[in-house]
Amino acid sequence: MRPFIHPDFLLDTPQARALYHDYAEPCPIVDYHCHLSPKEIAENRPFANITRAWLGGDHYKWRAMRTVGVPERLITGDADDHAKFLAWAATVPKLLRNPLYHWTHLELARVFGIDDLLLSPDTAEEVWARANERLAQPGMGPRDILRRLRVELVCTTDDPDDALAEHRAQNARADGLTMRPAWRPGRHLALQDLSRPFDETLAHLRARHGHFHANGCRLSDYSVESFAPPCSDAQAAAIHEKARAGHTPTPDERAAYAAWMLAWLARLDAQAGWVRQLHIGALRNPNAAMFAALGPDTGFDAIADFPYAQPLADHLSALAADGALPRTILYNLNPKDTVMLAVLCGSFQDGTPGGRVNLGPAWWFLDQMDGIEENLRAVSALGCLAQFPGMLTDSRSVLSVPRHEYFRRILCRMLGRDLRDGTLPDDLPAAGALVQAIAHGNAAALFA
Amino acid sequence: MRPFIHPDFLLDTPQARALYHDYAEPCPIVDYHCHLSPKEIAENRPFANITRAWLGGDHYKWRAMRTVGVPERLITGDADDHAKFLAWAATVPKLLRNPLYHWTHLELARVFGIDDLLLSPDTAEEVWARANERLAQPGMGPRDILRRLRVELVCTTDDPDDALAEHRAQNARADGLTMRPAWRPGRHLALQDLSRPFDETLAHLRARHGHFHANGCRLSDYSVESFAPPCSDAQAAAIHEKARAGHTPTPDERAAYAAWMLAWLARLDAQAGWVRQLHIGALRNPNAAMFAALGPDTGFDAIADFPYAQPLADHLSALAADGALPRTILYNLNPKDTVMLAVLCGSFQDGTPGGRVNLGPAWWFLDQMDGIEENLRAVSALGCLAQFPGMLTDSRSVLSVPRHEYFRRILCRMLGRDLRDGTLPDDLPAAGALVQAIAHGNAAALFA
Amino acid sequence: MRPFIHPDFLLDTPQARALYHDYAEPCPIVDYHCHLSPKEIAENRPFANITRAWLGGDHYKWRAMRTVGVPERLITGDADDHAKFLAWAATVPKLLRNPLYHWTHLELARVFGIDDLLLSPDTAEEVWARANERLAQPGMGPRDILRRLRVELVCTTDDPDDALAEHRAQNARADGLTMRPAWRPGRHLALQDLSRPFDETLAHLRARHGHFHANGCRLSDYSVESFAPPCSDAQAAAIHEKARAGHTPTPDERAAYAAWMLAWLARLDAQAGWVRQLHIGALRNPNAAMFAALGPDTGFDAIADFPYAQPLADHLSALAADGALPRTILYNLNPKDTVMLAVLCGSFQDGTPGGRVNLGPAWWFLDQMDGIEENLRAVSALGCLAQFPGMLTDSRSVLSVPRHEYFRRILCRMLGRDLRDGTLPDDLPAAGALVQAIAHGNAAALFA
Repeated sequence: MRPFIHPDFLLDTPQARALYHDYAEPCPIVDYHCHLSPKEIAENRPFANITRAWLGGDHYKWRAMRTVGVPERLITGDADDHAKFLAWAATVPKLLRNPLYHWTHLELARVFGIDDLLLSPDTAEEVWARANERLAQPGMGPRDILRRLRVELVCTTDDPDDALAEHRAQNARADGLTMRPAWRPGRHLALQDLSRPFDETLAHLRARHGHFHANGCRLSDYSVESFAPPCSDAQAAAIHEKARAGHTPTPDERAAYAAWMLAWLARLDAQAGWVRQLHIGALRNPNAAMFAALGPDTGFDAIADFPYAQPLADHLSALAADGALPRTILYNLNPKDTVMLAVLCGSFQDGTPGGRVNLGPAWWFLDQMDGIEENLRAVSALGCLAQFPGMLTDSRSVLSVPRHEYFRRILCRMLGRDLRDGTLPDDLPAAGALVQAIAHGNAAALFA
Repeated sequence: MRPFIHPDFLLDTPQARALYHDYAEPCPIVDYHCHLSPKEIAENRPFANITRAWLGGDHYKWRAMRTVGVPERLITGDADDHAKFLAWAATVPKLLRNPLYHWTHLELARVFGIDDLLLSPDTAEEVWARANERLAQPGMGPRDILRRLRVELVCTTDDPDDALAEHRAQNARADGLTMRPAWRPGRHLALQDLSRPFDETLAHLRARHGHFHANGCRLSDYSVESFAPPCSDAQAAAIHEKARAGHTPTPDERAAYAAWMLAWLARLDAQAGWVRQLHIGALRNPNAAMFAALGPDTGFDAIADFPYAQPLADHLSALAADGALPRTILYNLNPKDTVMLAVLCGSFQDGTPGGRVNLGPAWWFLDQMDGIEENLRAVSALGCLAQFPGMLTDSRSVLSVPRHEYFRRILCRMLGRDLRDGTLPDDLPAAGALVQAIAHGNAAALFA
Repeated sequence: MRPFIHPDFLLDTPQARALYHDYAEPCPIVDYHCHLSPKEIAENRPFANITRAWLGGDHYKWRAMRTVGVPERLITGDADDHAKFLAWAATVPKLLRNPLYHWTHLELARVFGIDDLLLSPDTAEEVWARANERLAQPGMGPRDILRRLRVELVCTTDDPDDALAEHRAQNARADGLTMRPAWRPGRHLALQDLSRPFDETLAHLRARHGHFHANGCRLSDYSVESFAPPCSDAQAAAIHEKARAGHTPTPDERAAYAAWMLAWLARLDAQAGWVRQLHIGALRNPNAAMFAALGPDTGFDAIADFPYAQPLADHLSALAADGALPRTILYNLNPKDTVMLAVLCGSFQDGTPGGRVNLGPAWWFLDQMDGIEENLRAVSALGCLAQFPGMLTDSRSVLSVPRHEYFRRILCRMLGRDLRDGTLPDDLPAAGALVQAIAHGNAAALFA
């Protein structure tokens, strides 16, 4: 029987097959936003078993397991790795039509070479044994896996105080994998780093920004969970010092400070010529009890739904008026906002080749078949698909690299149908060039 | 000529046809949310004519008739039943692509056995005659129709003060149709029952909740038209007594009281092990003049568009923190919120088999071909389709039962395409088991 | 090779081809909302070259050029017409999947007869030469082009103080093209015309409304960019006089005044039997620097995302209660609101043939393949497709008329698939009648 993940998976027209196999598949991978651990990549330590490689830290899977009735002990609790793997194997058949079903089998195929069976309780022991045997072979450390999956550039997400030693070491290694840091100063927007007075904090951030640049950083990242008009410089200083003195700022003060800092940092990014990412609209930690029990990033986050077109426009406008708007990639988590954002990008285009402001790929909950296609359609109809910055994993696991393949297949499926239907001109090389720009060229030009 | 409603209606792949005919069609029906009259079912009194059976009380049809230019006299006015039927027959051909067009012909086929013509002014007299002849035959009372359409369980929607005698009588009848009540205490959230002091109101509700449970209730239902932070217990008592004393509570007091009561009642539901339904986001009675003339539920309602992710999350979080979150089904009326809600469910999953919080089927205005498929896609990609609680009619008419068939055909069409396209594994029995769980098994497990 | 814009472009079923060629294509065009210059139509002066005809004033193209990296000098700047044309030609190949790609080639084919090549840097000089040669031939003035493209009625958009001489002249010409004005009193909602005291302003507006009616106006147009409860008559007078006295009204006062004026003008429209258009939800001029540099309508606008179901319902309800709700067409710019609006229309239907309140066609950013189909689907499922008022260009250029053809092809594609799939009855003439109503009949009945 044909494997589920067969060479033409998702490619339902001759045009899609040609686009994928001739244009997309040969492209190396640029993963310009993820949450991989630089240390894990640097150390390249083999995984003890598939549970450690696949389930540890993957809150997408944890969430799915809780959904289908798996007790927490078998998810993040003290059950052993084998029991946790069996719990995941029992979960998978309940996830038909969920992206985890496709990802699971893509990852088994691409990382472990297991493409002849579907994960289920019936096959769990065989997969456990074969996958662990594979992991015990040489060349299966995290860095090895990235290289074998043809990742040429990975951008991690880093705190301003990170030393970036692992990045320097990796790039000195010159093994075909470049690792760049990305600047994520979220603590400073949230008034969570009060170790220095206001002016010194700014000086410190400026110095660390320079350090990041010197170590190859070309990309910043901000999680924007609310919008407010920024306060004045003097107010920002006052709020900072108030918090530093141990007084609790009001919610309005916090919001205004965050907005001020977002704009202040944008100017640093613009001066350095970086690309700035705004991840907008997560509703973090809505389940208070589970947040208290397990902390952040454990599979309990959700999607916010507040309106923000006007304040986001105001933020971009103020920067643009000063010539201080960095190249910016906008990500939205609520699909109701995809079209609004795709259009807003166009309001700040200024003749910069590749675009001053672009919509990024479908993020997090939207990183699935329908979400990806809806995102690409919005970019196409309201912006410029040819400039799309391309896919990323946003993952904490090296095993997630095949999400790039998944994206490329969906892209080629969409364009293949366009060619078949005559909504694109009958010019395969032109469509192929478009595929290659999106699969690799645009991101390489921005970040390589 | 093949009838419009032919055996393979909507089933556009061999896989869809196999899924529907071999798996879905044999399943009996659980209609776990509707507005049927227990009295009507108990009395089983035959309908005088098709207008009484089909047009009386069906505000979907009334709305459509007003839209296409029918005067109110022929809708809810004093025109005779024959004239009203002709007005509806003249409306139908104008409703191409509207769900009413499909429902109309499904209902004519399944209830009246009329599948050889389309309703229009040309066929109106023939349909009038044939349908009325059919209604005059034995076994065409409301209860008969439910049983003939293979409804095995129906959950009505009831006021806490209802005696539930009809439910007891029906279940004593042991004729294959179980009728359960559902608890709908909306008057108490809206401060519309001030017959008792606050403490006595709570005691009364607790007693009635027990009475409902003893009479087979396993399901509650709340219409949520706004969100506010709940007040304290003491404030709730004060607001209640203020209203009882004849003073008008402020809008903020009303909203806080409703939020408090929603949470208080949730704890009752959780203790009793019931499933709670939240119907969120109706904009009720926006047309003041027609509300004054005809009252509620007459076809003038609309869809609200306020943001509510954060306050809904806060409501669920507070209950979950106390172990008092009942199993909850969320229904949204504005499709912009479908994905947000499907994701929020996942933030409160806790290992309960079948899920602690689930998105329900496409509701009201969204109960149509595109709306159903969009709902199923969101559940699939962001939750667990295999746990979907299944379809319901939400109707005031026994003639609406074929909406279950409509839903099942749309479900099988979607899954059939997935099988054809290889996005699901080529395993018809697995897909068939999924169909049966959604068509019957999950709802039966929850409510039977 | 088959031209890109071939006779069956977008028509992917035999049914779609029959619907388009036999029903849609023969229909003349009613363009009931556009921003064409009455003077330009009246003068009928030939265009100097294709840049003047095609790029001057078309902010859709300007926006796309900025997006792909064209400097402003080649867009709205002082570059010569030939250079600007080459910049556009270089932009087009980057717009695959953007509606401009389809529009560009439809317009080249239908206006210039150029359907044997695709615009690109390689073909730019040839297109420049052939198009300019064509423009130099007789019968290529703006009015000629409208007539040759079979426009029988065009409604311009006009200020209340416009004399409408060009409209009278055109209609006296009796050349098959009727030109009607549309009433757009936006300055008066925005307190931008303070030349008269409040009472005189109202008297002036009433007089001008009568003048418009006498000159064939049957249509008004309002851009609604926020919603607020209207103030009282006395407050409106006070706010007007305050502004007139040189004091700046507060934002709340401005909003309340605009809401008051919107309702006051609606009553004029209702008395005159006009159709009123509400264009809701533009986020105008979000890029302050570019607004300062280039002014409004230069390609920098965006989409707002505030909730407005309740205040819009209140506005409609207040008018309906007084029997003063004019026939109204609602346009939304944010697709998250399409379903909400389609439903709200139904809440104000009152038996008026053709509908009291209707959703209009996909507007502006949504005027593209996906947006059009999504709009038609919402109208179908939640309203009455058979009453859809039909397409319009909303354009500033006579070259945009082929957008009607584009719309018709998309409509026929959708209905053709329905016929193929059996979701519509197998009755081509019935579907053809539906196509003709939407393509021509409904708009002709409303505005001719």
